[in-house]
Amino acid sequence: MSKCGKSFYIKVSFSVRCFVSGAYNKMGKDNELVAAEAKLLLESRKIVPPLTQKSYKGQAGRIGVIGGSLEYTGAPYFSAISALKVGCDLSHVFCPKDAAIVIKSYSPELIVHPVLDAKDAVEQIKPWIPRLHALVIGPGLGKEPSAIEIVSDIINLCRTGDSEYQKPLVIDADGLFMITQNPEVIRNYPHGAILTPNAIEFSRLAKVILQEDWAATPEPAMENVKRLAVALGPNIIVLHKGKVDVIADGGSGSVWQCSGPGVGRRCGGQGDLLSGSLGVFYTWALMASRKSDSKCQLPPGVIASYAGCRLTRECAVRAVARAGRSTVASDMIDEIHPAFETLLGE
Amino acid sequence: MSKCGKSFYIKVSFSVRCFVSGAYNKMGKDNELVAAEAKLLLESRKIVPPLTQKSYKGQAGRIGVIGGSLEYTGAPYFSAISALKVGCDLSHVFCPKDAAIVIKSYSPELIVHPVLDAKDAVEQIKPWIPRLHALVIGPGLGKEPSAIEIVSDIINLCRTGDSEYQKPLVIDADGLFMITQNPEVIRNYPHGAILTPNAIEFSRLAKVILQEDWAATPEPAMENVKRLAVALGPNIIVLHKGKVDVIADGGSGSVWQCSGPGVGRRCGGQGDLLSGSLGVFYTWALMASRKSDSKCQLPPGVIASYAGCRLTRECAVRAVARAGRSTVASDMIDEIHPAFETLLGE
Repeated sequence: MSKCGKSFYIKVSFSVRCFVSGAYNKMGKDNELVAAEAKLLLESRKIVPPLTQKSYKGQAGRIGVIGGSLEYTGAPYFSAISALKVGCDLSHVFCPKDAAIVIKSYSPELIVHPVLDAKDAVEQIKPWIPRLHALVIGPGLGKEPSAIEIVSDIINLCRTGDSEYQKPLVIDADGLFMITQNPEVIRNYPHGAILTPNAIEFSRLAKVILQEDWAATPEPAMENVKRLAVALGPNIIVLHKGKVDVIADGGSGSVWQCSGPGVGRRCGGQGDLLSGSLGVFYTWALMASRKSDSKCQLPPGVIASYAGCRLTRECAVRAVARAGRSTVASDMIDEIHPAFETLLGE
Repeated sequence: MSKCGKSFYIKVSFSVRCFVSGAYNKMGKDNELVAAEAKLLLESRKIVPPLTQKSYKGQAGRIGVIGGSLEYTGAPYFSAISALKVGCDLSHVFCPKDAAIVIKSYSPELIVHPVLDAKDAVEQIKPWIPRLHALVIGPGLGKEPSAIEIVSDIINLCRTGDSEYQKPLVIDADGLFMITQNPEVIRNYPHGAILTPNAIEFSRLAKVILQEDWAATPEPAMENVKRLAVALGPNIIVLHKGKVDVIADGGSGSVWQCSGPGVGRRCGGQGDLLSGSLGVFYTWALMASRKSDSKCQLPPGVIASYAGCRLTRECAVRAVARAGRSTVASDMIDEIHPAFETLLGE
């Protein structure tokens, strides 16, 4: 995490602490949350890189999705294609061999590496990591111990390796299962990670990490999301997906929400749209925060989380308006361009 | 290269030398470049063969793309399908076995040969070469020594074989990596080749071939592009892709540009659209130059390069107008028909 990023955490921890304090009355808290959302949307716009003819391929982001399994080929595809449609230049998938042939056939736009079930999977993935800006870990990964071990080893490589391996992470789905098996994989990860549990995944993480028995709910207490993030470490964001998305920053202990319009449709693949878009927004937010003339006033991981949640919700609303109960993840991905233009366009 | 082609080089080398001379003031040079672009667009229109009911299958071009690898299946697909959509009749892909099944699944329009990882790959590809008009070498090829060796052997076959093997080449991506490994593969290739480096590939080629340490830039000095082309030989075109595309002819030492509107989107696959379209335009330009009543006044490789660059830029502009930052290579390929009609239609 950049020096610049750290200074953000300190600044924010005071100004937004009120959100999780019981001292404010309900109305005041709600108003502050709404004002914070408006600010987060403005911050999200600031991180979007300009489309300029002087740019070269890769500069707008090279994202790697590690996932896929015998059963799941859609999830890593949705994540990787969403990253591309949000605006990165190159989107890679690292998956098992049998999944690769299927994922490749979904789209010629992706670069698919059939390596995740190889004996030397980590060795095969390793040379690609320096070429990527961010890793999205977990979509469709499955719970096979061998896959979990490979992914753990990759995170450890990113944690302890030279600077070229030090990548920000987005962890979703079975990547979160990995963390319930061994929280030390991610605790105090120094290069930034966004964890994106849904209600059930959140309650499982809370049980293992905080020894708390919180019932899964789409409307968790913001204080609880904060406690999990703080317990995981200063560079960890916990993004609880729900009726309102709750974003807690382990560094500052601050909590935000994304309460933009949502839908009741819960078809598979929506979380993958979010994880892929988070890979891109996290990359952009970190790039923006490292600029000497950076105008960002909030932590990169928080801005990225808000941008990803808000975009995903907007895609869902637009897709459901068009296809109603028949909406599938691909319908939502088709809405990335107009949703992006509406929320984050120039 | 036809006798007719050679006479062009001589004529052009004098009339356009001014573009790379410091003697002209900036305004004069800019005006000349603009005038040259107008001329190149007119020349591009002249090479397009008429759609006539008297023609037979294959007459408008049979293009072979040699590429693809374990990771990359999209690149050779984009190149081959672009060739078909620009207007050739038959588009072949020569790729490894595992890539072939995927590339076939992208489109039933392509003829896909699963041969590039066979022990006798060159022997298997050899009988197809006489049936093709041009070879596009490199899209998604990868850097495996065995693939590089096969492709080098094929170029050598085209260089030294009987007339039926003497084919014009388009070399892109890892085909350019091959040349940085061994420039002699392409130096003084007698049957015409267009090399299409981006900024980074160009700087690597310059380092190996000219022992120059030029920083990669999307706006290279035209003089530098010329120097590389001249060093490679009289039948070599170097097409530097960038903010403005720069086209240098190793034969005459002349330099042109394609400065038509472009975009800031740099998703993967745009270079493949260019390489596939160059295969077709090169075929057409050479066909036109060999006609006894040829009206072309510029070297075939230069006309082809300009047509390919201009079409690719127009496709990009149209796609980005439609899909913005979400634009992917397939969106651009969808624009080949209207872009072609606008620029080169009758």
